[in-house]
Amino acid sequence: MKSPLEKEVLTKVRPTDEEICQVCAVAARIIDEVDKSGLAEGMVVGSVARDTWVRGDRDLDIFMLFPPDLSREDLEHEGLALAYRVFTALGARAHEKYAEHPYLNATLEGLDVDLVPCYRVASGYEIRSAVDRTPFHTRYVKAHIGDYRDDVLLLKQFAISGGVYGSDQMTGGFSGYLCELLVIHYGGFHRVIQAASRWRPGTVIAVEAEGNREFHEPLIVIDPVDPGRNVAAALSLTRMADFVELCRGYLTAPKEAFFLSPAPPGITRDMVEDIIRDRGTALYALVFMTPPYIEEVVVPQLKRSEASLASLFTRHGFHLTRADSKMNGIRSMVLVELESGSAPRVRRHRGPPVWNLENAEKFLAKYLGPDASSVFAGPYNEEGVYIVEVPRAYTDAGSLLASPEVMGVGLGKHIRIALEGGWEVLKDEECVIPGFEEFVRDFLGKSSPLVKVIR
Amino acid sequence: MKSPLEKEVLTKVRPTDEEICQVCAVAARIIDEVDKSGLAEGMVVGSVARDTWVRGDRDLDIFMLFPPDLSREDLEHEGLALAYRVFTALGARAHEKYAEHPYLNATLEGLDVDLVPCYRVASGYEIRSAVDRTPFHTRYVKAHIGDYRDDVLLLKQFAISGGVYGSDQMTGGFSGYLCELLVIHYGGFHRVIQAASRWRPGTVIAVEAEGNREFHEPLIVIDPVDPGRNVAAALSLTRMADFVELCRGYLTAPKEAFFLSPAPPGITRDMVEDIIRDRGTALYALVFMTPPYIEEVVVPQLKRSEASLASLFTRHGFHLTRADSKMNGIRSMVLVELESGSAPRVRRHRGPPVWNLENAEKFLAKYLGPDASSVFAGPYNEEGVYIVEVPRAYTDAGSLLASPEVMGVGLGKHIRIALEGGWEVLKDEECVIPGFEEFVRDFLGKSSPLVKVIR
Repeated sequence: MKSPLEKEVLTKVRPTDEEICQVCAVAARIIDEVDKSGLAEGMVVGSVARDTWVRGDRDLDIFMLFPPDLSREDLEHEGLALAYRVFTALGARAHEKYAEHPYLNATLEGLDVDLVPCYRVASGYEIRSAVDRTPFHTRYVKAHIGDYRDDVLLLKQFAISGGVYGSDQMTGGFSGYLCELLVIHYGGFHRVIQAASRWRPGTVIAVEAEGNREFHEPLIVIDPVDPGRNVAAALSLTRMADFVELCRGYLTAPKEAFFLSPAPPGITRDMVEDIIRDRGTALYALVFMTPPYIEEVVVPQLKRSEASLASLFTRHGFHLTRADSKMNGIRSMVLVELESGSAPRVRRHRGPPVWNLENAEKFLAKYLGPDASSVFAGPYNEEGVYIVEVPRAYTDAGSLLASPEVMGVGLGKHIRIALEGGWEVLKDEECVIPGFEEFVRDFLGKSSPLVKVIR
Repeated sequence: MKSPLEKEVLTKVRPTDEEICQVCAVAARIIDEVDKSGLAEGMVVGSVARDTWVRGDRDLDIFMLFPPDLSREDLEHEGLALAYRVFTALGARAHEKYAEHPYLNATLEGLDVDLVPCYRVASGYEIRSAVDRTPFHTRYVKAHIGDYRDDVLLLKQFAISGGVYGSDQMTGGFSGYLCELLVIHYGGFHRVIQAASRWRPGTVIAVEAEGNREFHEPLIVIDPVDPGRNVAAALSLTRMADFVELCRGYLTAPKEAFFLSPAPPGITRDMVEDIIRDRGTALYALVFMTPPYIEEVVVPQLKRSEASLASLFTRHGFHLTRADSKMNGIRSMVLVELESGSAPRVRRHRGPPVWNLENAEKFLAKYLGPDASSVFAGPYNEEGVYIVEVPRAYTDAGSLLASPEVMGVGLGKHIRIALEGGWEVLKDEECVIPGFEEFVRDFLGKSSPLVKVIR
């Protein structure tokens, strides 16, 4: 039974007849093109095939099932060639993307279409590449979804609104297939919410058979079409906890904001200035041109750069409170909050153990000789290890972030190239620049999805 | 063979004939008093007995050897009674001190005299209390010291000048007996210095028999009169490294400063102001009346208070560079250097895991309800654990040090009582107060003994 609230939400998230009509028409034309090639069989997969897509979802996934006697190399080659032919026939400009092997992506009538080659295999146990599994997922869901389509829509919308939907690296949340399996396993939206409110790390859900290997992720959902796979492998502990919290909150006091969160307030430079003054901290942003690659390529490098810059600050004696990063169309930003923008001039430098005669003598000679004039205190030993107190290179966090030290940390290839073109250092309220207002606001007022719904 | 430098040093550290004459006379009178009681036998122990005391040493240790059939209780009782009678007969005002059992201390003709009751046992294996060992030490050294008296004087003076002499808790250095054993074992001052320059933690020196148990101290010197004891047990790793470093420095470039360090420069408030400004840090002192107890009682409590105050700062978000403490006749000081005297207003507070339903709900209710207005950000979860960002109680280190929080940390009984009478908080150059000038100077310019000799 759906509550009146849920029924109301469903009227807003079920795709419109117009949408359904359009998506089906585009899908049919693509399938026709694939089938008439005689090389492969077209199959709609994903939420469109399962009739579990929410209003406004513009993704259409179509697989081209090739005979399993094709070599892997031929599959890649023929698959791409056919996909190009199909899109060209339909007048769409396609570009290559990569999962385990290349596929094509194009925009057709405003829909984001993936055309993916895979093997037509007889069962989930015979899959050769990760994408071969997808048709089995579609068949499994279609066979078991029964009357739960609306439940899936509610759960997906609940996850989307709560910021926990999407199994991409950035989100680390719930995939559509995972939402579908949860609804099938527990028996509807309500039962998922009730069960999940009591989840703990290590919860195992065997939709069909038990898993045939050890899993170490926080949530383990054994794939019914492949018991060697955890459908929830991409779900991070943080995102899982966000979801558990949302479920508890919904059980306590359900409201529409759990599905359709109201637009958050805007933010201005003046507001940020006040917030920073209240917090008593210092905010720094490093801004640069986004490398001309897709999110799946750039985001992991951006995350790596964020971690490297955080270590750079720590290594130079600045105390970090939090860091985050954001890729935008044109520019990308690494945002860091420090307890203070300045560090003391004096720095403790650890030398060798006194017992290491050769290095101990070199160390002493250096700080008693050429570098003596710069020494604040020491050398002395603490538990047998030499310490000397010397000047710090950067006492201002902004100078560090503007220095060539930035190029010396692990950034990832494309971010490195982007930074070679220069970068900007922003401080405090300067960090509020077009395209990053929401990001800065959410960073400073960081709260869990449930807290946002309640406040 | 002694070098001309060492011969020169010896002329300055050998006790004068006058000193010898005076010490012997005082010792003889005490021994007489003990012997004529008929209850115990007097025995001079320590460096005076071994003829290894350095000029200006005012310590005279005399033991009263009681028959071993006396009960422990009777030994304590009769021992103290006899000691009081002896000192009274000589016109000295005595006061009780404690080692494993009580003994008397008095000042006689400017000498610091300990009169200690112990058992007359037949061998080191039969000792019943730690002090029973001392007569055996004296006998052992007398029997083996041979021509090495001058070597012991040099080593002791070397250790005194280098700040590594004394097995008390504060120093954690070399006892006189340890110096004597090292000279006997290695065969003279020079060989000690050569060997020690290559010591490493875990070095074992078996003067006679191998030890009969496992030792875990950095330097292990098996007591020739009790193989179950490590004579160097009190030596800390830091002090051992200081000594190793001094030995290396002496082998490289011997000079008089290794034995008789020149008086270090004085320090003024203006100088401290400049040093602190250069270092870019903040110095804080907590000053209070020294409890009316001996050093052995107060110093460990002071060290404990220092560690507790260091944790108090860390717990409240201040970053410590170093801390030290000093007991003086009238006042005592805990001195702390912080990276900054202020901490950001915002503080991360860790809550319960999201999975702990009961506590999670209480936590959320608190920060969404009554405490909501004070929340800067959050609650949110990090890897399943709640975080909330709330205001810090103390953003100024001086306010924290002046607050009642100080009475809430582990201080030790006597320091606690002293602080109940109030305390003073000093900042930066204010810390230079009479009686603590050297302490503040050595704190700020902390260097190893060798570095001090060389600079």
